Amino acid sequence: MPLKLNSKSAGFEEAFKALLNQKRDEDRNVDMVAADILTDVRKRGDAALLDYTRKFDRLVLSDTTKLRVTAAEIKNAVTSCDATTLEALKVAAARIEDYHRRQLPEDQMYKDTAGVSLGYRWTAIENVGLYVPGGRATYPSSVLMNAIPAKVAGAKRLVMVVPMPDGIINPMVLAAADLCGVNEIYRIGGAQAVGALAYGTETIAPVDKIVGPGNAYVASAKKQVFGTVGIDMIAGPSEILVVADGQNDPAWIAADLLSQAEHDPVAQSILITDDEDFAKAVEAAIESHLENLNRAEIARASWQDYGAVIIVKDLEDAPSLVDQIAPEHLELCVDNPESLAASIHHAGAIFLGRYSPEAIGDYVAGPNHVLPTSRTARFSSGLSTLDFVKRTSLMKLDADSLHRIGPAAVALAESEGLDAHALSVSIRLN
Amino acid sequence: MPLKLNSKSAGFEEAFKALLNQKRDEDRNVDMVAADILTDVRKRGDAALLDYTRKFDRLVLSDTTKLRVTAAEIKNAVTSCDATTLEALKVAAARIEDYHRRQLPEDQMYKDTAGVSLGYRWTAIENVGLYVPGGRATYPSSVLMNAIPAKVAGAKRLVMVVPMPDGIINPMVLAAADLCGVNEIYRIGGAQAVGALAYGTETIAPVDKIVGPGNAYVASAKKQVFGTVGIDMIAGPSEILVVADGQNDPAWIAADLLSQAEHDPVAQSILITDDEDFAKAVEAAIESHLENLNRAEIARASWQDYGAVIIVKDLEDAPSLVDQIAPEHLELCVDNPESLAASIHHAGAIFLGRYSPEAIGDYVAGPNHVLPTSRTARFSSGLSTLDFVKRTSLMKLDADSLHRIGPAAVALAESEGLDAHALSVSIRLN
Repeated sequence: MPLKLNSKSAGFEEAFKALLNQKRDEDRNVDMVAADILTDVRKRGDAALLDYTRKFDRLVLSDTTKLRVTAAEIKNAVTSCDATTLEALKVAAARIEDYHRRQLPEDQMYKDTAGVSLGYRWTAIENVGLYVPGGRATYPSSVLMNAIPAKVAGAKRLVMVVPMPDGIINPMVLAAADLCGVNEIYRIGGAQAVGALAYGTETIAPVDKIVGPGNAYVASAKKQVFGTVGIDMIAGPSEILVVADGQNDPAWIAADLLSQAEHDPVAQSILITDDEDFAKAVEAAIESHLENLNRAEIARASWQDYGAVIIVKDLEDAPSLVDQIAPEHLELCVDNPESLAASIHHAGAIFLGRYSPEAIGDYVAGPNHVLPTSRTARFSSGLSTLDFVKRTSLMKLDADSLHRIGPAAVALAESEGLDAHALSVSIRLN
Repeated sequence: MPLKLNSKSAGFEEAFKALLNQKRDEDRNVDMVAADILTDVRKRGDAALLDYTRKFDRLVLSDTTKLRVTAAEIKNAVTSCDATTLEALKVAAARIEDYHRRQLPEDQMYKDTAGVSLGYRWTAIENVGLYVPGGRATYPSSVLMNAIPAKVAGAKRLVMVVPMPDGIINPMVLAAADLCGVNEIYRIGGAQAVGALAYGTETIAPVDKIVGPGNAYVASAKKQVFGTVGIDMIAGPSEILVVADGQNDPAWIAADLLSQAEHDPVAQSILITDDEDFAKAVEAAIESHLENLNRAEIARASWQDYGAVIIVKDLEDAPSLVDQIAPEHLELCVDNPESLAASIHHAGAIFLGRYSPEAIGDYVAGPNHVLPTSRTARFSSGLSTLDFVKRTSLMKLDADSLHRIGPAAVALAESEGLDAHALSVSIRLN
């Protein structure tokens, strides 16, 4: 049974707090294992990659030339894909590209009242590594969502790593990579792939930043190489929060809640409504949908273990709860969703109105589906074009403007005991 | 003696590569110690803070009410500051605020050709923690550079932690905090302060993001709490790269190189020039300046151990070397610095022309002095207003636009085996 909370009940605060602090991540101690693998890849390069790939992916590569996926393999994969699905992938890619192109930031340069020229400019991260999980749960949509912003930003070299356990790869993943202009693809995964991207090997030149989801070992390895390269967010299990009034079709809302639940037994789906009868109808519709889903077992486990229904007196009470949950995905299934959204501060993405199911954002709406989980929307954003550019500050003074603002710099440098700082300014003032 | 390289010499490539791979960070194993402290603070809260503060800062706080710096203490500190220095601090604050206000990003909302409303909006990170190193090397300028962007972004609550070893605090640090509108100040430091900000204690409410420089324990603790809260970059030792032709005053360039060297024995100052005689004159000027600097010992150690002079045939050869170094600070002391800058892709900040010493950017120019070190300018940017906001994606479809793009989402969801995703769209199409 999912958790039932009612904001009018005694004990609501405590129960809601317990919901917020619920731990859904696996807590295995993987850091040591990942650290050892990273050290080994750094030391032994390609040889370590071949060993780990044999060990973890049960894939024997006869020599290092087999690490890279060939152009012929990619072409064959594309040919083997279903035409309708490929067409849908192209629709998605075009829409994602359009959205992310609008995120490209602008340079700025201006002269201020002291005569100082100031500004900044943006440049692309040149070498980007993209981790794609392997096996049956590989998602071509994730390839698009990670690769397209990098390409839009201007990355010169986009390197994909994807493990192929027992040699198996979803051809749609290769087709998606091809569509996005991925430059190199290697059949490796795990902490060893992260190490290869961060440190480089004989075959794989290192990258500047690594993005993309992965299991606990991949997440740990990414965290450990942070600093040597940039990384994206460490993603936790997926979540959806639906705020819905009683005017929705319960079957629609039930499908939305299940669309996160089916991802993972530790995914979380929460419904906030002001209509207790509607909530019951949604629960019934969930049971009914579950009878026909091929991932019913996963979805059921998630809904029963981590699902929650919160009844509020008035939907105006929802925003403060939403902000505390800081959900990855937020649906506002009400007549005037903009008004409700204006009172909410923390959410990865907001789906406005009754015809904006979260799944549309997973594939074709255009915004990125890589979004902050586990309450991290309080301080972080979804993946965007901005994650693949960096900013250089620019400043230019002349003798006059240095005379105007230099003395303050000298005073501060002297107060901090940094003589050479002071000298480098004062020597130009004389 | 600093390293001498000449791009015309045999062996230049290898020697330059060795320079790039030089390790300047301390490599002590501090992670375990920091992890233990974090666990303890999480478990014992304030009591752990009092214990570690007594142990590491030799500061006995009689009870938890003493953790927080009082309004009276702050007022007294401000009163005790030198008036000229305070005035300079205000000049700096106003200029930093003006620059960072121009970095505030704009929201976007548009309807695309399929009739889908798309966009995003930015909101402030509400609770920000600011780590300020203690003891004699506390820099009020760092308080401004970390606190002002947070306030400009709209942070509601800005919490500063600053250790006071033996009870000592630079009053200018408290004055700077006061000037920036810091809301709470606690006299704690080290990994324990990071733990308090991340997890909260009885006295200190947790924050959403922690920024600011610290020693190796602080850096390790920040890395470990990343995910629970946001963090800024892990900063390494400071660096400057000066590209100068022979038309500069050697004494000016020498002062610039020393302004980084005086920070830290492992700081790094590099000169690239096309004029060998000029390089010798700069080296001589460094020796001469060193006789008069109070931090001469530190500056000399840095220059001798990590300083480098690179002679190139032509300054047009500089950009490719600069990009490989990806310096934190880059001075272009030439007649047409904009032209040279246009060929350079990786640098934290560029100081254009002969009257833009790096130190002006440390204090009063306006751009942030928290910049990417250790070649991380390849993938990251200096601190900015953007580090204190986060973006929420927005999307709104109606029945018509869902009919237009929904089928592609259904096709992709089905190909990924995610039935409920497909259902949540298709159920709205019938």
